[in-house]
This record gives sequence, structure tokens and C-alpha cells, in this order.
Amino acid sequence: MLYRDSGVDIERADDVKKKIAQLVKSTFNKNTLTEIGAFGGAFKFGDKILVSSTDGIGTKVILARMMNEFEGLGHDIVNHCVDDILTLGALPLFFLDYYAGHTIDNKVLLPFIKGATDACRENGVVLIGGETAQLPDLYKEGDFDIAGFIVGYVEGRIIDGKGIKSGDKVYGLPSSGLHTNGYTLARKVCFEIKGFTPDTYIQELEESIGEALLKPHVSYLKFIKPHISKIKGLAHITGGGFEGNISRVLPEDVDCVIDTGTWEVPVLFKLLQEWGDIPDREMYRTFNMGIGMVVIGHRVEGSIEIGEIVEGKGRVKLEGLRDS
Amino acid sequence: MLYRDSGVDIERADDVKKKIAQLVKSTFNKNTLTEIGAFGGAFKFGDKILVSSTDGIGTKVILARMMNEFEGLGHDIVNHCVDDILTLGALPLFFLDYYAGHTIDNKVLLPFIKGATDACRENGVVLIGGETAQLPDLYKEGDFDIAGFIVGYVEGRIIDGKGIKSGDKVYGLPSSGLHTNGYTLARKVCFEIKGFTPDTYIQELEESIGEALLKPHVSYLKFIKPHISKIKGLAHITGGGFEGNISRVLPEDVDCVIDTGTWEVPVLFKLLQEWGDIPDREMYRTFNMGIGMVVIGHRVEGSIEIGEIVEGKGRVKLEGLRDS
Repeated sequence: MLYRDSGVDIERADDVKKKIAQLVKSTFNKNTLTEIGAFGGAFKFGDKILVSSTDGIGTKVILARMMNEFEGLGHDIVNHCVDDILTLGALPLFFLDYYAGHTIDNKVLLPFIKGATDACRENGVVLIGGETAQLPDLYKEGDFDIAGFIVGYVEGRIIDGKGIKSGDKVYGLPSSGLHTNGYTLARKVCFEIKGFTPDTYIQELEESIGEALLKPHVSYLKFIKPHISKIKGLAHITGGGFEGNISRVLPEDVDCVIDTGTWEVPVLFKLLQEWGDIPDREMYRTFNMGIGMVVIGHRVEGSIEIGEIVEGKGRVKLEGLRDS
Repeated sequence: MLYRDSGVDIERADDVKKKIAQLVKSTFNKNTLTEIGAFGGAFKFGDKILVSSTDGIGTKVILARMMNEFEGLGHDIVNHCVDDILTLGALPLFFLDYYAGHTIDNKVLLPFIKGATDACRENGVVLIGGETAQLPDLYKEGDFDIAGFIVGYVEGRIIDGKGIKSGDKVYGLPSSGLHTNGYTLARKVCFEIKGFTPDTYIQELEESIGEALLKPHVSYLKFIKPHISKIKGLAHITGGGFEGNISRVLPEDVDCVIDTGTWEVPVLFKLLQEWGDIPDREMYRTFNMGIGMVVIGHRVEGSIEIGEIVEGKGRVKLEGLRDS
């Protein structure tokens, strides 16, 4: 099975991408500091730099509904956004949430807000605003979608990967699970192919498949913050995996070589691959495979060395895949 | 017909509101400058004040789909967000969009981005980021939702309504139509009760009902900006209408008395009321009735006097309604 078989096609036609980039660039002014495609947008404001980003948490909301567990989604959306701007070297200031659904069910909204505010406090972020939209004609009964918006600032310099050189080591920080990507595929594999329910107990995981899948996204703020001035490049491993995300910060004269044998891929990913008969390359393009944040050029606490930078052409190479 | 008959219930239980407010306040720090319930959140950043807001455009997206016209939605979401932070006296800096749908249809996405980037340039706003999420299991085929997020800054003081006094005049700036609120009710009235299609020509409007309903949200930036230091209070008339929105900036020792006979309610609203047999009070609570922005304490160009501030208890009173 491939990700596109589950109904999601990550690729977009190059000419459409180009047209969108052209339109977006038409709004840029002298204060715009980042190029299109970065993990966040950087904006010069007086003598400071603001960095912002928006994201959703995909169909993890559907899994949460199946399990009637919504607090984790609050952690997911906040931590995902914190990690996105962190990759530019930004520390978070404030967050806003957008929650839209068929009905505003307080049994969903309250635990979600509880989780989001807990995560905000953990990250030192103020929940400064939000929108709750009841759209019965747009969402099916019980359905809802969540998006988050974050603003942070860069104290010293933007981490943009420009200093990355051949010989730099590449480190990985562990993820807690799927974080917020690949859920459409994972649900197909677990609940359609395998016919599980969320509370099917999986011996190898020592917990139910639902519990394993619903684990909240990790915030890497506390790991990265103490070292922020020394790190050359950061990649948040989300949709697109290692190749799609590391390439966003890689200079054009180097390659990043990841040795996939350097860390133990968590059992959950191995099981999903086996159950769905998913090729290695597809797994590493869809899921984080146990590494939620890649750090280039400086070792941070809790990380393991997973690869290195060599002379090249801006490519990300995954070594040790069975189908490469 | 009442708005809640169309499936949208604007009210939320007070205890839930209180619990959410408590959770949200638990994230506040010394830099948080606004209370919950303002049109935007204000955040002290160094010696500057940042203001941000997030919003959607409701089921206007469904109307746009019926008409296969998506450029206006880009103007809607940008202008709505610009107006929201404008009410605090903030000038916009940058914007991010969130677009989620069953499929990412370029025939929808491209015109939407075209409209959004046009509106960004018109408002001097940089489109600094965005997220496009393909969620086939969450949205029905053809369905999508749009949210926007804006950050601006206050140059002088936040406009918070605190200086509003008995005797201040209240002015209104004209809207272009429904802007981005009341579409669930309007669609029910036009397409279910009346059985129209979007291209049904309406003599009184001198255009089709679809064209009349789809008119983009007005940005009030150019009207307000030259007078920003003199204005005492601003209310963006969105969901909740005059009462729900003016009350957000009104001190507790005054009332705002709006004389609904001072402006000509546009024909579109009159027709919707007649077709749907909607009581006056419900009309003024759901729709902007021709006034998109209320300005208190200073006349701005293009505005008309629609009421005044008197001693009172923080209430908004609508005079001249037939069912009050």
C-alpha cells in the first residue's frame, strides 16, 4: 500500500506551485525575511524578527473521535506549531486556535482547550485568541477540524541552514509516535486492512493500537532552546518525512546522508509497515519513523547521531532502505 | 424563521464560557494586554504592541462552490481579519491562511490565493505563510474550509473603548452585503424556502441572488487609518450583529443607542427578511444590515451618524425595531 492509495497525494504539480509562489511573492515587502517553503515565515519588525506559522493536525481528529479523547489534540496542535517556528530558531510568544465543526460539542471543545492551554503553559506561550465556528452544512455530524497559528521571535539569528558544511554531523531527537502526520494511511491500515478497533490490544506495543496512535506530538523547545545559537539547521519531520523536510534547510552544495540503521525504529512503525505491506521508501516519506526533529551541526541533549553532511547537490539520501 | 432554525446556535452556556475563559487565562503572562472577548489579542513585545486575530468565513464557501467563484473568498478572509484587528487600532503586518478540503483542487485553490494575495497587497499585508491540508476523510467531496490569521501592531494606543462617554456620537460605515456572516440562514432562505438557484435574477437587486450574496467583505483600513488616534471605540459588525459586537467595546457605565431609522437598510437584507419571515431583532442579531463597522467618538469619511452614547449599564439598544 502507498500513501496515495489512502486518498492523500502529497505531490502537487510544479506549475501550480510556481504560480502560487509568484502570487505570494507579490505581497512581499522589505520586511519579509524568508523564502516560500520554510517551516515558518520571518518578518522584520523594528529591530526584532517575528516568525509565524500555521498548521492543522490532519485526520488525527478522526482517531480522537473514535476514542472520545480530545485533550491530546490540544497538545498536538500547540506542540506542532512550536516545533515549526523552532526550526527557524524562534522562541514562541503567543498562539491562536481555529476550531470548526458541525456542532460545538462541549465534551469535545473543553478537553481540547484544556490540552491546548496545558501545552501553552508548558511552552510558555499565551493563548491569545481563537475562533470557534459552527458550520453544520460544511461538516458532517460529529466532525470537526482544528488549526493553530503561532507567533514567536528570533533572539539572535534565524536558523536557515546556510552555514551547513560537509562534515557536519546530523542528529535526531526521538518522536513519541506518529505525531500529526500519516493518520489517513495509518487508519486505513489498522481499521480497514486489519479490522482493528482503537482498543484492540497489541501485544508488541503493550497497549491498545488507539493509545499508541493517539500519543501527543512532542515539543522540542526545551531540547533546542539551550543550544539555539550553535545549531546550523533544524528540520521538523512532518508530512514528506526526512527527504521532504531536511531538504527545506539544506544548501545546494551539500547532501545530507541519513543512515537509517543508526536508531531503532519504534515497533509501532514496524507494525504499520508489516500490516499495510508498505515499502521502506514510502514509510520514510510518510512517517517520522521515530525521529521528530533533525538537528544539524550541533549535538543536543537526548539526540542520537543519525547521519552526516557531505559534498553534494542539496539532496537527502536515506541509506539502508531495502527498496532503494 | 430564526437563525437557530437553520442549525446554528450563537449562544453558548455561560458556565462553559466561564470554564474556557479560566483555562485561557491560565496561559496569560505580563505581556498579555487584552481581556478575553476582544476582537483581537494584544501582546506587549519589547516597546511595541502586537495584535493578532483568527477567523473563518463560515459557509460562504458553500455559496462560492455553488457559483464556482473563489477569488472573492480570498478578499473575504483577508479583509475580515484586517477589520478585526483594526478595531483595536492595529495596522496589519502579515497574514497566514489555512485551507483544508477533501481534495486540493487547483481550480479552487489558485483563484482563492489570487484573491487573498490581491487583498493582501491592497491592505499592505504580507502573505507570510499558509497551510494546505488534504483531508479526504474529514471533508466531503468538493468541500473545503478556510481560516485566516493576522498579526498587526498598534502605533499609539490600543483602542479599547475605555474613553467612551455619554454624549459621544456613533457612526456607521457601509457594508457591501452580508460580508462573512449569516450565510447558513441566507442560504436556507434563498435556496430552500424560495427555491432559487444562485443565478436567479432578482429584479429589486438588479443582479442575481448569488452575485448579491457573494460580494466580498470590505476592508475598513483606509477609512479608519487616518483617524485612528482620535477614535474612541470600534466594533466590527460580524456574527452577533450590533448588540453582540458593540457591547465588546462599551464601558459599563454607558449605553449605546442605535437609531435603526438613520440609514437605508440595503434591499438584500429587506428581501431576506421578507422571504424568510425573519423578525427584526433576529435580522439585527444575525446580519450587519448594511453597516459593517461602527465607529464611536469621531466621524470618519464615508460614515453616517447612526446613534449616540448615553448614561447606562453597558447595553446596546436598537431603536425603531418593529418587534422590540
